[in-house]
Amino acid sequence: MGVNNTDSDKTQEEEQQDLPKVVLFRPPPAFSLIGEESFASNKFHFLKTYDSQLPLDQFLSTHSHSIKAILSSAGAPVNADILQLLPEVGLVVTTSAGLNHVDIPECRRRGIKIANAGHVYSDDVADLAVGLLIDILRKVSASDRYVRQGLWADKGNYPHGSKCITTPFLANETKQLQQILDIKLDGLGGKRTGIVGLGNIGYEVAKRLEAFGCVVSYNSRKKKPYVSYPFYHNVCELAANCDALIICCGLSDETRHMINKPVLSALGKEGFIVNIGRGDIIDEKEMVSCLMRGEIAGAGLDVFENEPNVRKEFFAMDNVVLSPHRAVFTPESLKDLSQLVVGNLEAYLSNKPLLSEYVDNE
Amino acid sequence: MGVNNTDSDKTQEEEQQDLPKVVLFRPPPAFSLIGEESFASNKFHFLKTYDSQLPLDQFLSTHSHSIKAILSSAGAPVNADILQLLPEVGLVVTTSAGLNHVDIPECRRRGIKIANAGHVYSDDVADLAVGLLIDILRKVSASDRYVRQGLWADKGNYPHGSKCITTPFLANETKQLQQILDIKLDGLGGKRTGIVGLGNIGYEVAKRLEAFGCVVSYNSRKKKPYVSYPFYHNVCELAANCDALIICCGLSDETRHMINKPVLSALGKEGFIVNIGRGDIIDEKEMVSCLMRGEIAGAGLDVFENEPNVRKEFFAMDNVVLSPHRAVFTPESLKDLSQLVVGNLEAYLSNKPLLSEYVDNE
Repeated sequence: MGVNNTDSDKTQEEEQQDLPKVVLFRPPPAFSLIGEESFASNKFHFLKTYDSQLPLDQFLSTHSHSIKAILSSAGAPVNADILQLLPEVGLVVTTSAGLNHVDIPECRRRGIKIANAGHVYSDDVADLAVGLLIDILRKVSASDRYVRQGLWADKGNYPHGSKCITTPFLANETKQLQQILDIKLDGLGGKRTGIVGLGNIGYEVAKRLEAFGCVVSYNSRKKKPYVSYPFYHNVCELAANCDALIICCGLSDETRHMINKPVLSALGKEGFIVNIGRGDIIDEKEMVSCLMRGEIAGAGLDVFENEPNVRKEFFAMDNVVLSPHRAVFTPESLKDLSQLVVGNLEAYLSNKPLLSEYVDNE
Repeated sequence: MGVNNTDSDKTQEEEQQDLPKVVLFRPPPAFSLIGEESFASNKFHFLKTYDSQLPLDQFLSTHSHSIKAILSSAGAPVNADILQLLPEVGLVVTTSAGLNHVDIPECRRRGIKIANAGHVYSDDVADLAVGLLIDILRKVSASDRYVRQGLWADKGNYPHGSKCITTPFLANETKQLQQILDIKLDGLGGKRTGIVGLGNIGYEVAKRLEAFGCVVSYNSRKKKPYVSYPFYHNVCELAANCDALIICCGLSDETRHMINKPVLSALGKEGFIVNIGRGDIIDEKEMVSCLMRGEIAGAGLDVFENEPNVRKEFFAMDNVVLSPHRAVFTPESLKDLSQLVVGNLEAYLSNKPLLSEYVDNE
C-alpha cells in the first residue's frame, strides 16, 4: 500500500507541496489523543522533522523558505538556534498553555508572533486545582487508602495520631475518642486562599473557590485593574495572609523557585499548597522538608521538579496528594485545542488577527 | 479526687438537680471532638444513661418526670419503647442531619418536636460531594496511588488500558501513545449533574457545581417553588438525562434502595454516581455489579450499606473513591453544631421557637 500511490494521492501530495509549511519537531500529545486529522487544514501542510532521516539543521535548511510557522509542544524547545535557520517563520503556535520551552525574547527580537493554548485548558486545570485542594483539606485520597486497606472496620479511626479524622460513629470507647482530639480536618468555607498568578487559570480557580465560600486574594506581576480580590505584590506577604496557596502561574526566570523557604514559612504549619503550574516554581527540596517537619500542613501537587521522577519522600506522606501532571487533556479541551491551533495558523497565513496571541503583560 | 467532693461541687450538683434534664443514651461524637463543655448550659442538665449502672428502663423510669428532652446522635435510636418511658419529653434534638435513627411518626403521634443539625454540616458535606465527583471524573486518588507505587517513572501511563490518562508528555513512542487512545478523562464543564434530594446539602452542592460549569437538575419529593433547575419527579428519568447523580437525600422507607438497577441502567456506562447521603439509599450489590461490568463509569462513596464493613469488591476498583463516612466534623461545623444544639434546647425550655425544627415536607 505504501509503495503503490494512486494518481489521486499524487495529486493531493502535489497540492500539499504548494501550501505554506508548518514545521513540527515532535508529535504533540494531542495528535495521538484525538488524531492528527483534527489538526488538518487546506491552508497549510505539516512538515515533520521526526519523519525525515536528515539531520535537523539540514532538514530545516532544505525547507527554510517554505516554513512559515512552527507548531510546538512542551518538550520541543523553540530556541535561537532553530529560529536562525527559519528566516520565514513569523508565528510559533504551541499546544501548551505554558511557554517555558519557547525563547520568547528571541521571538520578540525577530518579530515572531506567539499563540499558545490560551484558555482551552483553563477549566480542566482549575477543576483539578480545586479537586487537589479539597483532597488535602478533607484527606480524600488518604482516607480512600485507609478504607482500601480494610482499616476502617479493623481500627475505626486513623492510627498514629494522624491529622486525619475518620468516622466518629465508630468511636465507642472513651479512649478511642480521645485519639480523635488530635485530629484536624479542614473545611473550605472561610479559608483564605491565595492565587499565585491570576491569569485565565487562576481566575477560573478563584471563581470556583468563591462558590465554596473561600476568601480569595492574589499575587501577580501587576495588579489587575478589573479584579476586586485583594492584591499582594509580595508572594511572601500573600502566604502570611492565607490558609492555602494555589500556584497557577507559568514558569519563567522570575517564578523559578519563587515558592522558597521564606514563603513556605510565611504560609505556616496550618497552611496548604496546591501546585498546578510547573514543578520548578516551588523549591521542592525545601517543601519536602517543611512537609516532613510539619512546618506546612499539606500539599496537592500535579507537577514536580523532575517529572516523571517523583521524590521518594512523598510516597509515604499522608498529607500530600500526588497527581502525575494530568491537569489537562479531557476530550472537551482537546477538541477546543485543535480548533484553536488550526484557527491560529489559518489566521496568520491569511493576515488576520490571531485567536490566542500571547502578550507578555499578564 | 472522685470521693472528696468539695462544698462548692455539692452546691453546683444541687443546683443541677433542679434544672430540667436532657437525656443522652450515648456520648455524641461531638462531645469528644470539641469537649462536652461546649454543650453546657445553665438552663438544663445532661443525664447520661451510660454513666449509670442501672438497666436502661429502670434508669428512665427513675428520672421520667424530670427528663424534658432527648439529645440523640446517629447510632442511638429514639424509638417508641424509649419514648413510652418518657412522658414529659417534648423535644428530640439530634447532632446529625439525618434522622433515620429517630422514629419520626411516633414523635409526631406524641406531639414531640424534632430539631436536627440543620444546615451546620451542609457546607462540609457539599464540599466533600464535589471533591468526590472531581476525584472520580479526574481520577485523583487513583492516579495518586499510581504515582505512589512509583509507576509514573516506570511505565508512563496507566497499564491495562485503564480509563485513566497520565501525562502524554512521556508518551514518546507511537505504541505508547496508542494506549492513551483508550482513555477517557472527564471534565466537569457542561456535565449534566442530577441532585437527588434538593435540601440544604443538595442546594449547596448545586451552587458549587454551577461554578464548574455543570448543568444542574434535580429530583425531590416535590418540585421546589423557588428553584429554577429542571425538576424530575422520577429519579430514573433524571438518571437518563444526567452524566452524574449526586445522592444528597436522607434515608427513609421511600428512599431505601431508591437507586436500584433500573436507575443505574438509566445512568449508563458513561455515568457517575456520588453518595454522601446514606449507604442504604443505593442498592449496593447492584451498584457493585454495574461497576464491575462497566455498566456505570464510576462512584464516589462516603457512605455504605454496612459501615464500617465495606464490600471487598470495591478495594480493587480504580473507578471508585471510598471515603469512610467523613463528610462532616470540621472544627467550623462542630462549633456551629454546639451552638445550635444548646440554642434548640434552651429555646424549647423557654417556650421559644426552635432554631432548626425538622418539618416533614422537604
